[in-house]
Amino acid sequence: MKIGIYGYGNLGRGVECAIKQNPDMELVAVFTRRNPDSVKILTDTAKVVHTDDVLQYKDKIDVMIICGGSATDLPHMTPSLAKDFNVIDSFDTHAKIPEHFKNVDAVALQNGNIALISAGWDPGMFSVNRLMASAILPEGKDYTFWGRGVSQGHSDAIRRIEGVIDARQYTCPVEDAMNKVRNGENPLLTTREKHTRECFVVAEDGADKEKIENEIKTMPNYFADYDTTVTFISKEELLRDHKGIPHGGSVIRTGVTGKDGENKEIIEYKLKLDSNPEFTASVILCYARAIFRMKARGDKGCKTVFDVAPRDMSAVSYEEMLAHML
Amino acid sequence: MKIGIYGYGNLGRGVECAIKQNPDMELVAVFTRRNPDSVKILTDTAKVVHTDDVLQYKDKIDVMIICGGSATDLPHMTPSLAKDFNVIDSFDTHAKIPEHFKNVDAVALQNGNIALISAGWDPGMFSVNRLMASAILPEGKDYTFWGRGVSQGHSDAIRRIEGVIDARQYTCPVEDAMNKVRNGENPLLTTREKHTRECFVVAEDGADKEKIENEIKTMPNYFADYDTTVTFISKEELLRDHKGIPHGGSVIRTGVTGKDGENKEIIEYKLKLDSNPEFTASVILCYARAIFRMKARGDKGCKTVFDVAPRDMSAVSYEEMLAHML
Repeated sequence: MKIGIYGYGNLGRGVECAIKQNPDMELVAVFTRRNPDSVKILTDTAKVVHTDDVLQYKDKIDVMIICGGSATDLPHMTPSLAKDFNVIDSFDTHAKIPEHFKNVDAVALQNGNIALISAGWDPGMFSVNRLMASAILPEGKDYTFWGRGVSQGHSDAIRRIEGVIDARQYTCPVEDAMNKVRNGENPLLTTREKHTRECFVVAEDGADKEKIENEIKTMPNYFADYDTTVTFISKEELLRDHKGIPHGGSVIRTGVTGKDGENKEIIEYKLKLDSNPEFTASVILCYARAIFRMKARGDKGCKTVFDVAPRDMSAVSYEEMLAHML
Repeated sequence: MKIGIYGYGNLGRGVECAIKQNPDMELVAVFTRRNPDSVKILTDTAKVVHTDDVLQYKDKIDVMIICGGSATDLPHMTPSLAKDFNVIDSFDTHAKIPEHFKNVDAVALQNGNIALISAGWDPGMFSVNRLMASAILPEGKDYTFWGRGVSQGHSDAIRRIEGVIDARQYTCPVEDAMNKVRNGENPLLTTREKHTRECFVVAEDGADKEKIENEIKTMPNYFADYDTTVTFISKEELLRDHKGIPHGGSVIRTGVTGKDGENKEIIEYKLKLDSNPEFTASVILCYARAIFRMKARGDKGCKTVFDVAPRDMSAVSYEEMLAHML
C-alpha cells in the first residue's frame, strides 16, 4: 500500500513512524503547505512535496492520510482531496460529523473513491466500543471518561490569556465516579463530578497571577463547569515535566440481562496512552488498510469505523486469525 | 427477525431473555431433544418443538441459534443445521476452530446459507479486541486474563472425584500480574503466575477430605499448574453463596509507538459479568442480527466475528450512529 501524508504536524509525524511498523505499507510522499525544503522527514525513500503539487501524485498513492485540524482544515480538505484520492481523516468535531459525512460522501461517490472520516480513538475506537457495547446490552447506560491527558484546546485557551507565556492543561477523570460506574451503581453524574482540570501555567515576570488564575477558573465552556486547579511553574519545568502528549480514557457500558434484569454486566474499553497523536496515527493506519481493501472490492463513498469489519484492519491472514486469534 | 433456539440449557434460556430486550427480534420456537411437553419456556407466543421436527420450520426462521456444547454437540449440529438454516453457534474449543470453520463453510456455501461460528465473549468479543489491538499496535504483547468466574469444566472435573457431591470452581486472575501488565512492564508470566483456582467442594459425610483436596490439587491439566485452594462447604452454603454463574476478564495489549518505540500505549478490554451465559447470549443476538443483514445482501458461507462490521450488530440507524455514537 502506498501512503501519502497530507500535513506534517504531530499527527503526520505519528503516521510516518507508524508506517515503519507496518511492512505492508510504504510512505510515498509528505505534502506540506510550508516550503518543502524546510521540512525534514524520517523516511529517506519518501519525498516532501508542496500541497500545490498534490495532483501529480494522483495515481501514485493508494490512500492519502489527511493530518489537518478539525476546526478549519478538514471540512474543506477532505472533500477536496476525495475527488482525486482515497482519503482518511480524524475529524473530531462530534456535532458536525453528519454534515462532514454528507460533504465527503457526495464527492467520493461521484469520483469513485473511498473516504473514511473520524478515525482515531475518540471518535474512532471509543465509538466502535460504544456501538458494540450498546448493541450487546440494549438495556444499559453509557459512560465515557477521558484522561488523564493533555487537552490541546484547553491549553490553547489558557495561552490566550494576557500575561501567560505557555500552558499545559490535563483533563482528569474523577476516580471515585469511575469506580461507582465500574461497580455497576449507575450514578447520575454532572460534568463537574466526572472530570477535573489541572492547569500548569508559565506566566510573564510580574504578571498578576491571581487575575490569571481567576480568568482560567471562570472561563465559560472551558473551565467554569469543572473543579480546576492552577499551578504556576517556570518555563524550564514546563519543558522538563510536561513535554509529552499523554491521553487515554474509558468507555464503560453497564447493562442488565436476565428474566427481570436481575444480572449486571459491565463492559469497559480503556486506553492509557503515552502519545495521543502516535496512537491516533496507529489507528488511522489500520483503517487506511481497510479502505484500501474495501476499494479493491468495489466499494466507494464515505465510510466510518462502523462500516469496517475487524479482519480488514489487520495484516494477518484469515487462516492465521482463525487458528490463533479467535 | 424470526429466531429459533436449538437447545434449551443455560445459554438457550439466556437467548430467550435477551430476545425480549431486542424489539426487532421474535422468538418463533425452542427446539429440544427432551419431550417438548416437559419444557416450560418464558415466551407465550413461541412453540416448544422436538428437534426431530426442526425441518418443519425451514422457512419460518431467519436465524437458528444453536445452544449446544462444544465438545460433542456443535461439531455435528452446526454443519447439519447449516444445510437448512442460517445458523450461529458459540463453539469455543479454540484449537479446533479451523476444522469447525471448514466443515460449516462447505455446507453453508453449498446450500446458500450463512453461518457464524464462535460468537460470545471468548471466543467472540475478546477475539475482536485481540485482533483490533494487535492491528493497531503491531509491536506489542497480548495478555488475556479470565475471571473471577466459574469454570464449568473445572467444576465438573472436581465432581468426578470419589466422595464429592458437588463443587464450584472459580478461576481468578492474579491482581499483581495484571497490574504489572497494566503498567506496561511487559512481564513474562507462567500459567501459575497469571491465574489461581478457588474450589468450593461439598463432600459426602465421612469422605476423606485430605485425599479429595490432594486429588484436586494434583490433577494434571486442570489444577496441577496452578496455585489452588480447596474449601469444603455444606450443600446449603453452595446453594446460597455460589448459585450464580459470574465470569469476566481482560484482554490487554501493550505496545510501543514513535521513532524508536519510546512511547508505551496500552489497550484493555474488560468484562465483569454477573451471568456468563446471559452475556454470551446477548453477544450472540448481535451477531445473529448481523448475519441476517449480510445474508440479505447476498453473503453466504461460514463467517466469524472478524467478518462483521459493527454497524451490522446494532439496531440503531446509521444516521443516529453518526449523530450520537461516533
